[in-house]
Amino acid sequence: MSIPTPIAWTPDHRIRILDQTLLPMEERYLELDSVEAMVEAIQLLRVRGAPLIGIAGAMGVTLAARGRGRSGPELLGRVRLAAETLRQARPTAVNLAWAVDRMWRRATAEASGDLHPALLEEATAIWNEDREMCERIGLAGQPLLRSGVSVMTQCNAGILATGGLGTALAPIYCAHRSGLDVQVVVPETRPLLQGARLTAWELMQSGVPCTLITDGMVASRMRRGDIHCAIVGADRIAANGDVANKIGTYGVALAARAHGVPFYVAAPRTTFDFSTPDGRGIPIEERSVEEVRGFQARASAPRDVLVWNPAFDVTPAELIAGYITDAGVLKASELERLK
Amino acid sequence: MSIPTPIAWTPDHRIRILDQTLLPMEERYLELDSVEAMVEAIQLLRVRGAPLIGIAGAMGVTLAARGRGRSGPELLGRVRLAAETLRQARPTAVNLAWAVDRMWRRATAEASGDLHPALLEEATAIWNEDREMCERIGLAGQPLLRSGVSVMTQCNAGILATGGLGTALAPIYCAHRSGLDVQVVVPETRPLLQGARLTAWELMQSGVPCTLITDGMVASRMRRGDIHCAIVGADRIAANGDVANKIGTYGVALAARAHGVPFYVAAPRTTFDFSTPDGRGIPIEERSVEEVRGFQARASAPRDVLVWNPAFDVTPAELIAGYITDAGVLKASELERLK
Repeated sequence: MSIPTPIAWTPDHRIRILDQTLLPMEERYLELDSVEAMVEAIQLLRVRGAPLIGIAGAMGVTLAARGRGRSGPELLGRVRLAAETLRQARPTAVNLAWAVDRMWRRATAEASGDLHPALLEEATAIWNEDREMCERIGLAGQPLLRSGVSVMTQCNAGILATGGLGTALAPIYCAHRSGLDVQVVVPETRPLLQGARLTAWELMQSGVPCTLITDGMVASRMRRGDIHCAIVGADRIAANGDVANKIGTYGVALAARAHGVPFYVAAPRTTFDFSTPDGRGIPIEERSVEEVRGFQARASAPRDVLVWNPAFDVTPAELIAGYITDAGVLKASELERLK
Repeated sequence: MSIPTPIAWTPDHRIRILDQTLLPMEERYLELDSVEAMVEAIQLLRVRGAPLIGIAGAMGVTLAARGRGRSGPELLGRVRLAAETLRQARPTAVNLAWAVDRMWRRATAEASGDLHPALLEEATAIWNEDREMCERIGLAGQPLLRSGVSVMTQCNAGILATGGLGTALAPIYCAHRSGLDVQVVVPETRPLLQGARLTAWELMQSGVPCTLITDGMVASRMRRGDIHCAIVGADRIAANGDVANKIGTYGVALAARAHGVPFYVAAPRTTFDFSTPDGRGIPIEERSVEEVRGFQARASAPRDVLVWNPAFDVTPAELIAGYITDAGVLKASELERLK
């Protein structure tokens, strides 16, 4: 596959990211050398996708210890501040908090040793584990597909959202790799158009046939009868199986239910939050009204119009046919196994 | 209200239209003096909305007889060609065919008389009747609302879509006029953003509070529990009550059903097509792929991505709580009364 990696170390341990806000029109890379720059990149969605912002958060913590003294309480204090700031960069995806907390535990365990190499090692481990989880998700989900099927997704839960093959798209990439003819129907995912800009782009780069639709066409496309299943990613999954994911996901789930189309959620175990009993406890980020008033700085609505702009919605567990995880395809009642 | 009229005669019987593709950023008027110019204005959605394209089609027929001889078979031939061309400008809305056919009947009845004044009279009658039907739809629908409610709509079925107060928005305008506090939640309606550009604009101009959302937020907003009912317009209603309307309408209906929110369709009798038994017989216009590949002429997807772009969807009668018509609020089983 010819998809560029969305995140990488530079030789001197700064962090190189692909600026996803500019895709597919421009492929531009940024080199980040401060925690503040990484927080900004996460908040502006230059780097996005629940698993990837976990990796980015972990890598971001290392920047607090880069090129400074080797250890000591003052350095540990810097790392702690970095972890706290990064943890709060976005509220909904649990992977970010999980990864940053793990970095902090490693930092405290290494406090008397050589901090920066230890943090580099931990962040790289988080990244490698995510890549492996993507592969396992792909292999677990592939048997749900057969040649000739069309899969509907939402937003981008692919190579650009993870450290590997993606979550929702991983079964599709595995099937494609095995020579199966699998097609994807991609809702554009307003307001930030991750479906149109990112999912369509990475599928086309990978040679997987796809068709772009607007978000309002989801139900009508389901009614047409040629969608075999829906697979989406997740930003946080509560203990009962309720799923927070990109706004629009719940509408896909309702349309799938109305037409007897199975609706799957693909996610690594790092996306499950057993401390939150159900979807009501998941904090939903509301973003700038300007995202809905226009696109790429071009107005599409009256300038002062009131706007509601939640970045995520919650799909109740009862609409979900299965969870495609790195531990296999599970029912809501089987999620305890991931603890 | 300070909304400009979307269509008007000029003193010399050309046709002045508000170019709705430029709203709300620019309020520009065009004067049309040929049938071809009117066909183009309809196809490019400069003038749009099922009732309004009926009026525009009728007014367009008059242009074939303007400034020419008074009668005769050659003039009637021109009028016939104009009627046929206008009838085919867009396939889904039945109002256009209905209005143009009525103009042709008037032309044949007047063939030995003074054709242009007769056609002007008929087109003006169609326009006035539409204005009156809008008023009756508004008064019929107003009792469904009470102070403090929020109504969800889709696309634009308001002043800009008709010869009067609109269809879906007419009950809201009547309630507002009576001093009720009614709010509207407006999905932006991609790809052409009639919700964001037109509905939000005319509601704000009229002093009716509204909130703009993206199409993917519809289901989540219904789940929030503060939507009292949904009211949409229609482009064609089959004999069994199935409704073709702007793409996205079916998703609104499914979300409304899932949350026990009544879903109404507002339309004048000219939108009912008793010759089409059910929704399967309604031709659905598919429009240019470029509408979905970009956003206001700015690319938002890979250049060569495959696209599906139906302009309308069909909502089955079983999801519709009632039809708000100029003959009152009817159930699907009562639609025969409109024949």
